[in-house]
Amino acid sequence: MKSKSSGLFRNLALLAIIASATAIPGSLFAVDAPAQKSVQQWDVFEVQLSGPAGGNPFTDVQLSCNFSDGTRTVTVNGFYDGDGVYRIRFMPDHPGGWSYTTGSNAPALAGKTGSFQVTPATGKDHGPVYVRNTYHFAYGDGTPYNEIGTTSYIWVHAPDDWEDVTLKTLADSPFNKIRMLIFPHDYNFRKTIAPTLFPFVGTPPRDWDYTRFNPAFFQHLEKRIGQLRDLNIEADLILFHPYGNSYGPNNSGFNNMGRAADDRYLRYIVARLAAYRNVWWSLANEWDFIRVKTEADFVHYGEVVSSNDPYGHMLSIHNGALIFNNTLPWITHSSIQNGDAVVESSRAELYRDVFRKPVVYDEVKYEGTGAARWAQLTPEEMVHRFWEGTIGGTYVGHSEYDVVDGDYWLAYGGKLYGQSPPRLAFLKKVLDDGPARGIDQIDKWQDSPVAGVPGQYYLVYFGLNKPTTWAFQLYKNGLRDGLHFKVEILDTWNMTVTPVDGDFVTAKKDNYYFVDEQNRSITLPGNPYIALRIRRVDNTPAVPLTAPNGE
Amino acid sequence: MKSKSSGLFRNLALLAIIASATAIPGSLFAVDAPAQKSVQQWDVFEVQLSGPAGGNPFTDVQLSCNFSDGTRTVTVNGFYDGDGVYRIRFMPDHPGGWSYTTGSNAPALAGKTGSFQVTPATGKDHGPVYVRNTYHFAYGDGTPYNEIGTTSYIWVHAPDDWEDVTLKTLADSPFNKIRMLIFPHDYNFRKTIAPTLFPFVGTPPRDWDYTRFNPAFFQHLEKRIGQLRDLNIEADLILFHPYGNSYGPNNSGFNNMGRAADDRYLRYIVARLAAYRNVWWSLANEWDFIRVKTEADFVHYGEVVSSNDPYGHMLSIHNGALIFNNTLPWITHSSIQNGDAVVESSRAELYRDVFRKPVVYDEVKYEGTGAARWAQLTPEEMVHRFWEGTIGGTYVGHSEYDVVDGDYWLAYGGKLYGQSPPRLAFLKKVLDDGPARGIDQIDKWQDSPVAGVPGQYYLVYFGLNKPTTWAFQLYKNGLRDGLHFKVEILDTWNMTVTPVDGDFVTAKKDNYYFVDEQNRSITLPGNPYIALRIRRVDNTPAVPLTAPNGE
Repeated sequence: MKSKSSGLFRNLALLAIIASATAIPGSLFAVDAPAQKSVQQWDVFEVQLSGPAGGNPFTDVQLSCNFSDGTRTVTVNGFYDGDGVYRIRFMPDHPGGWSYTTGSNAPALAGKTGSFQVTPATGKDHGPVYVRNTYHFAYGDGTPYNEIGTTSYIWVHAPDDWEDVTLKTLADSPFNKIRMLIFPHDYNFRKTIAPTLFPFVGTPPRDWDYTRFNPAFFQHLEKRIGQLRDLNIEADLILFHPYGNSYGPNNSGFNNMGRAADDRYLRYIVARLAAYRNVWWSLANEWDFIRVKTEADFVHYGEVVSSNDPYGHMLSIHNGALIFNNTLPWITHSSIQNGDAVVESSRAELYRDVFRKPVVYDEVKYEGTGAARWAQLTPEEMVHRFWEGTIGGTYVGHSEYDVVDGDYWLAYGGKLYGQSPPRLAFLKKVLDDGPARGIDQIDKWQDSPVAGVPGQYYLVYFGLNKPTTWAFQLYKNGLRDGLHFKVEILDTWNMTVTPVDGDFVTAKKDNYYFVDEQNRSITLPGNPYIALRIRRVDNTPAVPLTAPNGE
Repeated sequence: MKSKSSGLFRNLALLAIIASATAIPGSLFAVDAPAQKSVQQWDVFEVQLSGPAGGNPFTDVQLSCNFSDGTRTVTVNGFYDGDGVYRIRFMPDHPGGWSYTTGSNAPALAGKTGSFQVTPATGKDHGPVYVRNTYHFAYGDGTPYNEIGTTSYIWVHAPDDWEDVTLKTLADSPFNKIRMLIFPHDYNFRKTIAPTLFPFVGTPPRDWDYTRFNPAFFQHLEKRIGQLRDLNIEADLILFHPYGNSYGPNNSGFNNMGRAADDRYLRYIVARLAAYRNVWWSLANEWDFIRVKTEADFVHYGEVVSSNDPYGHMLSIHNGALIFNNTLPWITHSSIQNGDAVVESSRAELYRDVFRKPVVYDEVKYEGTGAARWAQLTPEEMVHRFWEGTIGGTYVGHSEYDVVDGDYWLAYGGKLYGQSPPRLAFLKKVLDDGPARGIDQIDKWQDSPVAGVPGQYYLVYFGLNKPTTWAFQLYKNGLRDGLHFKVEILDTWNMTVTPVDGDFVTAKKDNYYFVDEQNRSITLPGNPYIALRIRRVDNTPAVPLTAPNGE
């Protein structure tokens, strides 16, 4: 959460100036909703106010609010929700007493004050996800977040009962993030039913008033985001995308609303949704395929989102053929489309070092039997890519393209027919049972399939290879003679964990490696997709790690 | 070359101000050298002036010179060469008449004028190397530059006759770039003879006056750089490096001269050497292992070099374990240490997309039989890495670690004992005979070992695989039915080229590929390190290329 130590009075002063210059006549008879008296940490605290309904409230009225815990002030923007109703949403990041004061150029909305209690997070509420240890994620309360993502682009544009099916499917899945489009795609549910809700007022497919949002669309969207939140699933909201010829061919329509409308849309989205702790911002899908927007445009849009979001939610931009400059400071993590990069872990790792941020391979092609190369991954290959990405110290995203009744998960959600999800649940359990600090390559740039935490925890993944034996050997970092390790054989496809008898005890082999003091090997089943989990079991002090030096 | 359209008078005015404020008494009896009357394009034009020898000319005297062809002015800095001699060096980039005017805070050096003729480049003089087609290089005259580099860190710190041996070896080698340190390394030739020339005045190993350069050191260095130039070998000059404990343990000594001395050193190097067309600047070797300099320091040093170099020579920075932010604008190409990245072409390509610059894998481990992992590449693996890098659309660097009489090529040069150089000469001939625009992946992110120019020229490299047949098949971009291709089998290790009988004629297979209209396959020898060269031989118009779209 970004704080402004002395922003309260400065902002109020600014708003007073704005108000005097461009005052909007308010409804003298509006009635504000009763004030909320308490909220759970990281839940949504909402102030509902009545204000002007005439003119165009979306463009005419500015509304913001300073929230303070007594030492720190957080400024959030409010938004117009139609019918003279204005809302301000706030996600408090710690328990205790908070107060607020509104500011607006509409007198009916200005100077509203209140106070409320924030209660500690309970149950499934772990807070928003942030970056931890450079390459990994954790919730606000410190719980590790091991991303196992999926994509269903327009599941919130489906018939309502189908969206409920999607939520049910997600609840039974391993997925803890879903990528989804705000703007509609260019085809209909079951190829017959067109979306009925759109983000702007107007007439589909192409007659929109980009100065007037459609509250019903956003009310529906945020209901679904809230339901995802209650399932502990992050909503990776794709703010722009190149699809949607039905709504504007040749990169027109929602792709090409113009800078002022784009900025207003982004501010509105952030004002409405940022208080949902499970929101991630994906600035674009396949940004470079949106031909009417330049890279510089997206830098601007990224800065608009970043500067308006008081909580610093995860913010990324997904590529088509051209990787965005992910070194820019507002990009929290790299969202990469490149299935080829997770074919093996040594590839997967390469982008990490360049960007020095978590890498999520959000698009690695899809499980399915489609005609297109991107829609024909075997389930084995999909699971394999997750494991290779994991061993590369990165995260991976799933989706599937199995057309049933004219639709498929990648588009409108619904049901999953593929075989990868249970195996991804197995991987997720391995990660959740693993080191809290995340999985990193143990001996990077050495073509080594070993990742974990030096001296403590190792995953060895053999992928497509089918070894029948593995001589116990670990890279020296974090090791000394006499450390005890337990080994388990993981069959990542058949989802079995088989302990290996006895302890393996380290003995220095040469300048690089330690082996078992009795030179023990491990017998392996000779199948593909086998991994080893090797965990330190003695209680002697950790061996100090050496800095990476290429050797 | 950077030009300043109206910089002449502004610079002279500035220097007049400097001169009046901090005038240095000149030697009234100094005699300038006779002015040079002509020079070949891209050769060194030198003005030799006599000036003050008292005080500390390295810090007291500013000297610059405006060179003009009548429409464009290029400002270069002069430098002090000891014994009251000052020099100004200029590399003209086109034939015709040029004139110059000096400026200085020393009256004896100010206001010197002259004119000279630049004659067209002839023979081996192709000009400096620049980036072309985003990922590739060409000389100033447009001749493609296909980098086949090597490294010999301190060959210019060896006994003189050994340096001559090194030059003879290079003359007979395929190498057209050599990486070399300016500052000494921390050990002696044959482990007994310490370097005798050092860049600063003082007493080795650690008593240096960083305010006074040693002209004899630089005269020797530039003699060797000039000899490399005459062999058409680029001198990739490493300006800082972390080695040299003998000269300053714990990152002191030359690693830690302080900001002012570092800046002065960089300006002096650029003033002396930038007129050599074969100079490349490598800001550091293993920059992140220089613990006393931060990344921000190197950004500053990069800007110092870049802003002082009027010709925009190639400028890079080489990493240890941490990849520098190669997106910065002053970095012309990525100089990468990561042998693992050139194990196969799909890895090699990944950095290219990120940096959108040429990638030179300057350190991929070394051919040799050393105990260290970085010193034990087989010659086959060294050649293989060059080929994988090539198929990834990148360039690679060689060196070798075969200790003979206590030294080896990587350190003090001398003779090459490895088996890779003739094979690298074979690769270089393939590249020089190949497309002038360079080799790019044909179907990136599809795990495809095919590179070239779509529709025109293809290299297929099988690497460690030993296929006995290859069904003719090419990705669709740039193809249509009925195009004729000739195929040759290249044995990259045995250095043979075997033509395959007849033409292969394209016929569309599916949405992705074209095959031979008779479904012909090519019989292969079943050895590793085999490549195919496939060249278009009909004269029909080129097929327009499609934009990359991930498919």
